[in-house]
Amino acid sequence: MAQASPQSPATEGVIDLLGVLAYGELTAFDRLAVDARLAPTIAGRAALADMAVAELSHFRRLAGRLQELGVDPEAAMRPFIAPLDAFHDSTRPANWLESLVKAYVGDGIAADFYREIAGVLDDSTRDLILDALSDTGHAEFVVREVRAAIAADPSQAGRLALWARRLVGEALSQAQRVAADRDALIMLLVQGSGDITGIAALIKRVTSAHAVRLTELGLSA
Amino acid sequence: MAQASPQSPATEGVIDLLGVLAYGELTAFDRLAVDARLAPTIAGRAALADMAVAELSHFRRLAGRLQELGVDPEAAMRPFIAPLDAFHDSTRPANWLESLVKAYVGDGIAADFYREIAGVLDDSTRDLILDALSDTGHAEFVVREVRAAIAADPSQAGRLALWARRLVGEALSQAQRVAADRDALIMLLVQGSGDITGIAALIKRVTSAHAVRLTELGLSA
Repeated sequence: MAQASPQSPATEGVIDLLGVLAYGELTAFDRLAVDARLAPTIAGRAALADMAVAELSHFRRLAGRLQELGVDPEAAMRPFIAPLDAFHDSTRPANWLESLVKAYVGDGIAADFYREIAGVLDDSTRDLILDALSDTGHAEFVVREVRAAIAADPSQAGRLALWARRLVGEALSQAQRVAADRDALIMLLVQGSGDITGIAALIKRVTSAHAVRLTELGLSA
Repeated sequence: MAQASPQSPATEGVIDLLGVLAYGELTAFDRLAVDARLAPTIAGRAALADMAVAELSHFRRLAGRLQELGVDPEAAMRPFIAPLDAFHDSTRPANWLESLVKAYVGDGIAADFYREIAGVLDDSTRDLILDALSDTGHAEFVVREVRAAIAADPSQAGRLALWARRLVGEALSQAQRVAADRDALIMLLVQGSGDITGIAALIKRVTSAHAVRLTELGLSA
């Protein structure tokens, strides 16, 4: 499979990957910006707004990479608009704590996934993606806020754990929808993880990293 | 009037000024981020998101300056939350063109006002504010989009001109509400413009710059 040819499945897969990540970042920007309004303090609102800004800068880099590849970013993102919008529409946080958990869990799963797929990419796409991962330093803020809220009212823990489970459930259901449709993207992942059982192992690693994050937040997985 | 004393009206006025500008930028961030969703294209959405990011960076600098002055940014912003939220609540854009006109007009009036008041400030606050003004380069995008929309459908011009008039009306009504309440801020402006007739002249200059901007957009003032 020649990676250099623009028609090869690997390249199609990379374009799909950049497209889904780019739209994911753009939509993360506007959801975080909206959710920032749920903050009880201006400091909290500014912290979530800063996370939103970091996502937009990732979006810019991913869209720029698509342009370098001679691909219209809008066309590359189009197949992923409906599933990503559906994910966000089905997981609108009802309050500040839910928005924090969503930001933390979403960011974490995205980062894990980025790291998992980095290995199958050409050098320059990989560098771009790993760079986009550089910690924006807001995770600490989220952990502190959520743990403080649970300390003040332990009944929050169970409710938020359920919320985190729902987030993952909705994300997986949209991911399946994407997988059913995008052969080149799936081939890229299969190629990256060795074979089809590699994908199962990948999902298992991402899921167990998610469980670790929930524990950090003070929630049971 | 000793500007150095933290109790002097001038310093109280500067704190008020930084507070209202900071909250104005924070709220501009989240309204622009929300309005970005009205864009018909991803390029338009990203352009408005970039404007939102620029506002958040201004917010950060203004809040940082308040901290340097030993003032809690949240306390400085508090008196201005209700009037600024009321302004935005009463001017929610119904569509993409309204959101572009609001972004352009709002940004323009804020920039004019920043320039007008820069003269009364201490050097470091003035530099900060003039720096926050540096064109983010998105105005051109807005002008192009609005002019293209009017060229395609000339009936938009009258409707958008009315919308721009409503924006200014709502802004003035909230500004009056603030003025009635914040003596130190008004004293700062009076001091800056010479006397009370200077304020009338300031309002006239800002209003006529607004008319010029409307003409640039292809709207009659």
